[in-house]
Amino acid sequence: MHKKLILVTNDDGIAAPGILFLSNIAKQFGQVCVVAPDKPQSGMGHAITINSTLRAHKTKLHQVDFEHACSGTPVDCIKFAINKILPRKPDLVLSGINHGSNLSINVIYSGTMSAAIEGSMEGIPSIGFSLCNYSIEADFSHGEKFIKEIIQKLLTHKSEETTCLNVNIPNLKADEIKGIKVCRGAKSNWVEEFDERRDPYGVPYYWLTGNLVNFEKNHPETDLHLNEQGYVTVVPVGFDMTKHNQIPALSNLF
Amino acid sequence: MHKKLILVTNDDGIAAPGILFLSNIAKQFGQVCVVAPDKPQSGMGHAITINSTLRAHKTKLHQVDFEHACSGTPVDCIKFAINKILPRKPDLVLSGINHGSNLSINVIYSGTMSAAIEGSMEGIPSIGFSLCNYSIEADFSHGEKFIKEIIQKLLTHKSEETTCLNVNIPNLKADEIKGIKVCRGAKSNWVEEFDERRDPYGVPYYWLTGNLVNFEKNHPETDLHLNEQGYVTVVPVGFDMTKHNQIPALSNLF
Repeated sequence: MHKKLILVTNDDGIAAPGILFLSNIAKQFGQVCVVAPDKPQSGMGHAITINSTLRAHKTKLHQVDFEHACSGTPVDCIKFAINKILPRKPDLVLSGINHGSNLSINVIYSGTMSAAIEGSMEGIPSIGFSLCNYSIEADFSHGEKFIKEIIQKLLTHKSEETTCLNVNIPNLKADEIKGIKVCRGAKSNWVEEFDERRDPYGVPYYWLTGNLVNFEKNHPETDLHLNEQGYVTVVPVGFDMTKHNQIPALSNLF
Repeated sequence: MHKKLILVTNDDGIAAPGILFLSNIAKQFGQVCVVAPDKPQSGMGHAITINSTLRAHKTKLHQVDFEHACSGTPVDCIKFAINKILPRKPDLVLSGINHGSNLSINVIYSGTMSAAIEGSMEGIPSIGFSLCNYSIEADFSHGEKFIKEIIQKLLTHKSEETTCLNVNIPNLKADEIKGIKVCRGAKSNWVEEFDERRDPYGVPYYWLTGNLVNFEKNHPETDLHLNEQGYVTVVPVGFDMTKHNQIPALSNLF
């Protein structure tokens, strides 16, 4: 069997502690390539760069054979790595570890998860990892054994469809984490607030803030609940956006 | 019954011909509010602005009561409109008309469609319109009667779940368009090419380009095929990213 080729990216930027931790774990599973944004790209969703140009330059932060910082989004990084950097299509895409939660509806806004989804769109098993701690000084080591277990199991998992996993690690010490639970994303939504300020010239500007409202509080099958209960949550994620169940009723309209 | 409040946005920017055409149509259905990007934001997917600030200023391009150009993404525009501009939650979100196709897998990259999806996440019926013609001088009038019919029918459509529609108008004259078909997105993927160039200083830079490969050529239930056949395609779109069918097999792993 050939050595596994593992592509690592993130949305916090190539020098973030989370991706340095993840690329080190990845080295235990195969040959690692890191192509990640040259600056933070949080909240970029599935954005790609089509109205402007991309740059990429080699870095030596991760001490791997192929390592580039790219001026684009996390999804750009996946496309660029596969098409311009890697000798062949990778066997696994790892994204993260994100500094902060990507539970529930956050998948759709997350650059971390969009990179993983893009990997799965290319037919590559992919995992996005997030630690539910927004601090740049967060301790990623508490999740290590769970991350290794999930990577190991996905690498040997047989499935007709490509698998993409959204993994969220609670902000707990290793011995406080209760285990791993496969589940679905909770139904939730952000209630936004725009924090309005004035610049030194008196002109208003805004910060997007808000609160996540869980529509399924305490529902035992959902990631928000299980993560709160102390589990590492694993949600399989897809990219078929068609809402098939609505087709019959809508077809009757036209 | 109160007058319908209709929020119009796009990803090509508030001054693009496509959104000017759409806001004019919208006026026939209620009170129109336009909050759209102050510059092109194509390919922005579901990106939001969280690492930097937002600006917004009033414009008079659309001659409506509420009209703002926003420095953010299409999804930012929806959030900003609902939270800062509009007197109440709108009854309908319209996004577009995009200058170019958003068929099949393109939904996930599209700023136009992500704005509509964000509307539906807020519980508002939403439609993204795209004309399969990338020219800034495209003639949007050929799609007018179909756009009106779809808006009219969605406004009176009763459904338990919020409806979000991805509408693609073929690049044909009105009398060549065969009608409207509700269908699903075709399975497809982009095969990317990065066009590598050198700047005047000899440093490489890249343009992301590529070709869409249809995995379901000529499949009669898919948007790519029906659009090619001359139909206005209407695909209901969702935002639940969980791949529910994979949960049982993955649960057995852990």
